[in-house]
This record gives sequence, C-alpha cells and structure tokens, in this order.
Amino acid sequence: MSERIGPGGTVGILGAGQLGRMLAIAAARMGLKARLYAPEADPPAADVAPVIRGDWDDADALRRFAASVDVVTLEFENVPVAAVETLAPLVSVRPGARALAVAQDRLDEKQFLNAAGVGTAGFAPVDDADSLRAALAALGLPAILKTRRMGYDGKGQARIDRPDQAEAALAAMDGQPAILEAVALFAREISVVAARGADGGFAAYDPAENIHRGGILRRSAAPAAIDAETAARAQGIARAILDALDYVGVMGVELFHMPDGRLLANEIAPRVHNTGHWTIEACAVDQFAQHVRAVCLWPLGDPARHADAVMENLIGDEALGWARIAAEPGAALHLYGKAEARPGRKMGHVTRLSPLGKG
Amino acid sequence: MSERIGPGGTVGILGAGQLGRMLAIAAARMGLKARLYAPEADPPAADVAPVIRGDWDDADALRRFAASVDVVTLEFENVPVAAVETLAPLVSVRPGARALAVAQDRLDEKQFLNAAGVGTAGFAPVDDADSLRAALAALGLPAILKTRRMGYDGKGQARIDRPDQAEAALAAMDGQPAILEAVALFAREISVVAARGADGGFAAYDPAENIHRGGILRRSAAPAAIDAETAARAQGIARAILDALDYVGVMGVELFHMPDGRLLANEIAPRVHNTGHWTIEACAVDQFAQHVRAVCLWPLGDPARHADAVMENLIGDEALGWARIAAEPGAALHLYGKAEARPGRKMGHVTRLSPLGKG
Repeated sequence: MSERIGPGGTVGILGAGQLGRMLAIAAARMGLKARLYAPEADPPAADVAPVIRGDWDDADALRRFAASVDVVTLEFENVPVAAVETLAPLVSVRPGARALAVAQDRLDEKQFLNAAGVGTAGFAPVDDADSLRAALAALGLPAILKTRRMGYDGKGQARIDRPDQAEAALAAMDGQPAILEAVALFAREISVVAARGADGGFAAYDPAENIHRGGILRRSAAPAAIDAETAARAQGIARAILDALDYVGVMGVELFHMPDGRLLANEIAPRVHNTGHWTIEACAVDQFAQHVRAVCLWPLGDPARHADAVMENLIGDEALGWARIAAEPGAALHLYGKAEARPGRKMGHVTRLSPLGKG
Repeated sequence: MSERIGPGGTVGILGAGQLGRMLAIAAARMGLKARLYAPEADPPAADVAPVIRGDWDDADALRRFAASVDVVTLEFENVPVAAVETLAPLVSVRPGARALAVAQDRLDEKQFLNAAGVGTAGFAPVDDADSLRAALAALGLPAILKTRRMGYDGKGQARIDRPDQAEAALAAMDGQPAILEAVALFAREISVVAARGADGGFAAYDPAENIHRGGILRRSAAPAAIDAETAARAQGIARAILDALDYVGVMGVELFHMPDGRLLANEIAPRVHNTGHWTIEACAVDQFAQHVRAVCLWPLGDPARHADAVMENLIGDEALGWARIAAEPGAALHLYGKAEARPGRKMGHVTRLSPLGKG
C-alpha cells in the first residue's frame, strides 16, 4: 500500500463538493483518474468524474469504493472517522483517521496544537452552565462559544460580548459539548496552505491574508502583509503541525497574527483549503495538484509563487454577476456548477493576479 | 440559437482527444457541463466528461447528441463537414462548416488565405505526373508534396529536394489529390492563437515561436523572438483570417517569419491549438477557457500574458519520464490519460514559466 500511483491510476475522494471537483480536475491534468464517494445526489464533482453514491455508514458501499480506487483521500473534514476506519484495511487513506479526528473536535484540536508546541487563544471546555461560568471567569470577554464538533462557515457558534449573553449562547449549543474560546484581538488573519509527503518532505505556499465575514471566507490575498521572518515562522508552525500528525497531503492552517507579533493557531483543515485557491493561477503546481501528488506519493511540487494574487469568493447571489466578472480584464473566474445559489453558499471564486511585489 | 449559454449549460464537443479533455476541464471550471462525441472507445476525454460514442456518419447518434447539448464545437479539424451539416439545423455549431471545409483541404486553405489578402508560400495543385512536373517547374526545389486532405503531424507528406525524388513522392500520395508547396526557407516558425466572438470581438495571445521535428510540434515559446511590429502584424493576419470566415471560437494560425521580414501563412487549425498550451499557466484566461467563452457567447477573456513560457510536448516514450519532470521546480506537467505510449503520440506536455521579459 505504499507504492507510487502513476498515470492511469485512480484517486478516490471522499466528498464531492467544489473541493472534490477541483481535486478531480487536478488529477485529470496529471493523467490520473478520479472517483468520488458522497451521500448526495448530483454533487458538484459529478460533472467531472464518476461519483459513487453512498452514506457514510454504508460499509458495503465503502468497501466497493475501496476496491475501485488505488488510494483514498478526502475533500471534507467531517467525513466520519468510522468511514475511514472501514476503508483503511483495504486501501491507503491519506491523510488518515488521526488528522481527521483531531480536526473534527475543536477541543481535541486545540489540545493537540498546544501539545505540538503551537500557541492558540485561550480555551476551555463547556458542557453546562457551571463550566461555562468557570470558562468565562478564566478567559474573560469577549469570547466565542462553539460546539466541539461539526462546525464550519460560522455555524454552531455564539459570540459573548456581555455576561448577559451567556445563557442564550449556551442554549444555541443545543445541548452539544462545546468549547469557549477567547476572542483573539488579532492584527490580521493569515493562513498557510502546506503539503507533506509520506517521506516527510514539506512544501508550504506563501502565507495568505484572509478576510472572513459572518464566519465565511470572503477574500484571500497572497502574499500577506507580513515580513519574511513572520512568514517563515508561520510556515514553521504549519510544518510542526503536519510533522506531529505524520500527515500526508495538503492542509490549511489558519493563524491569527497578533499585534505583539505572536502567531496563534486558529484551526486546521486536513484538506485543500479555500485560502489556497489563488495557487491555481499563481503557482506552477497548485494546491489541488500538490495534494494529489502527496497522496499518490509523487514528488511534491514547487510552491513558488510567480505573481501576487487576490482571491474573492462568490457567495450566494454574487455568482449571478458572473458575466460582469468574465468581462473584467485579468480576472480568472471559477464557478462550481451548483444549480441553486442559496445564501451563504460558495458558488465560485475569482482570482486576480498582479506582478510579483506590486499587489 | 444565439443566446448566451450560462453556468449549468452543456457544451457539446466533437472529438474527445486531449484537446477535448482540456476543453471539458475548462468548461467545468466555468460552471458549464461538457459532453463529447467520438467514434473511439474510451478516448482521453472520457475521464472528465460523458462521451457519446458514434461514427461521424451516424445521423441518429448525431441528432441525439445535438438534443443533449446547448451548443456544439469541435476539437478535431477533420470532423467530416457532413456531420456538422447534420447538426447545424438542430443546434448552433461554432465554428461552423465553412471554417472546417477550408481547413480540411490544403488547396482550398491556401486559396482562401490568398483571397483574404494573406500571403503564403507558392503552391500548385497536383493530380498526376504531368501536373507535378508543371508545379515543380513553377515553384522550383525544394518543395513538399502533400495530400490535399486529412494531413496532420507530418503524415501524407513527401519532401522533394532533387528531381529524381518526384516520382516516389507522387507514389506516396497513393492516388489522392495533392498540392505541391514551395519550401519556405523561414527564419522562424511562429503561431498566433486567437479568438473571435460572435459579435466580431477579437483577442489574440502573443505569438509563440515553435519548433517542429518530423512534422510534430516539439516546443512553443512565448513570446516569440520577434519585434513588436512583427507581433502586431502576425495578430493582424490572424484577425483578417477570422474575420473573413466570420469565425467564432479559438483558431491556431501558423506563420513563417521570413528572413526578409514577411509573414507567410502556413496553415490554420479551426480549434484550440498545441502552440497555445502555454496559455494555461501564463494567462488568466487560457485558450481552452477562451474557446468555451467564444462558443457560449460569453465576453472574450483578456489574452494578456503574465509570464514568459516554454511548452514542450511529451511524445511517445518521453512521457515515461513524468516523475523526473514532476520533481523539477517550476515545471507544470500535464498528462492526457493515454494508456499506450505509441511512437509519435502526444502523451502530455510540460510548461515552464519565467518572469516576463526574462525568458
């Protein structure tokens, strides 16, 4: 199970959203086939590769999927760990269950990060009103209460700015185990999209600077407005995280750059990352090709950036403006083939390049 | 039949080789679906989009194909004109039968070019020994005898350097109508990959400089080593050709740059072109996306080049060196998913970028 998967081989992908779609395209450009697994009917990736439809707990379907591919990876960090454990005896799964488990639980994630020597904002587990009270006393305000599991794009989160908001925040957790996180009053949000090979090789793209609104990424710019020492430190943090997980593939590591210069890890995503979409246009080997390289045991590609880049997400109705963006000189428009433009739904993105150092 | 085809629409493509594969990928990145039509079992594009299998003279299959797509284009200039004529009453075909017919017959092509005011090397029709003798007397040596139809990648051609080679050259035509072309003693071969919209809009990429061996493209470099006036003249020739055909889509125009500065048209290909593959990495909107834009009546994209680029084809066994190329910093490797590396077969390509003006 540790042989390089060459041209003609098949990459299995768990999940079939836009990240799976872009991974499948990257695999195709490398002469590989892609095959995806997802519970949904007609997901975005179905336009570009076969999708096996199955539930995450359908062991028979998962086993059939394993038998039809040469390696399995994932585009969705909330794939149940049990599904990966069903697959793992049959086919290499990269990254494996450990990275997935850590990324799926905010408390485990923060504890893992601290144990790996990576600083985070303060946090404390919250299971009830008593533990919330204790956590608020320890961390102070403002703070954010989040469910430990299955949070993404700002869902399952409640900000607490004043003590009288604590009760409603706890109610919003709907009885699920939660974590209180101190709000980091950061100077900027940055992220490192980095790859690690099975041989321990490491390649990080330049850190991007990100803007979120309502918990959803709006914009990533590369390079971030940070000095070279800070950029190197951010990449070093990513390397420590990937090494500690014996990780194989691309990961997105979100960091807060604090006014005093510290870098605090916010969260990790064991997959290709929205803040790395700019690499499609700005790098010879983009994050999708890089991830496929890593999981197929190819040499990692050069992460050098040949242009400055700004990526903006097209969310919900914003995608209706596609024709205007298509007419804009220098804009690289990507649409994900989603029929319905629901509010908050990522429908596409646009990347604009400028010459190195003039962004 | 003249409405813009927006995201969610389906682009039909005649032919399903590597150009169809790359067109289908470009369509997917724009949120469009692709569906291809080809006679072969399991062609390269089948990894990335559905392929309807049918012969070029299977009118029923062609009609079913027409009913399943919103527009038809082509990746292969030798699609029989009759197939396009079957489709045309049912669905818009861009580019249409005229461009195809002109490109399929070397004599018609040269006559069309001259009529459009575009210079070519000398030529004369050859149907038998008498007409060959007359053509040789008129054009002199060296010259190349070519079948009028279905020539590509150096097939159906015989070079005549000495009078005693004429008889064998004629025999090599196998009784097919032929054309004798004077050998242009060019300083360099260049090409312009250009797009024209249905509204007459025009966008040309920078001319590339090409090296062929054995009639097969080996290498394209952008920019070509020509001055700005020559580049503009080359793009003007492309525009004259596309306008004269009322063309919609991307075309490749191959030109000889003569020692005296003249530009002579060699041949035109009414499709995306191997000498435009460098645009994938070096332009925000590459030739494949540009072609899809044109045939779907989207605004044409900006053809500006943000880097210098050199593309090399990987032919036959050269593709076996994929792992070495994958390990090379800055190399963007493309493989076409072809199982069998036959001699002369285009298996993939690699593009290397360098900063603008430093190539």
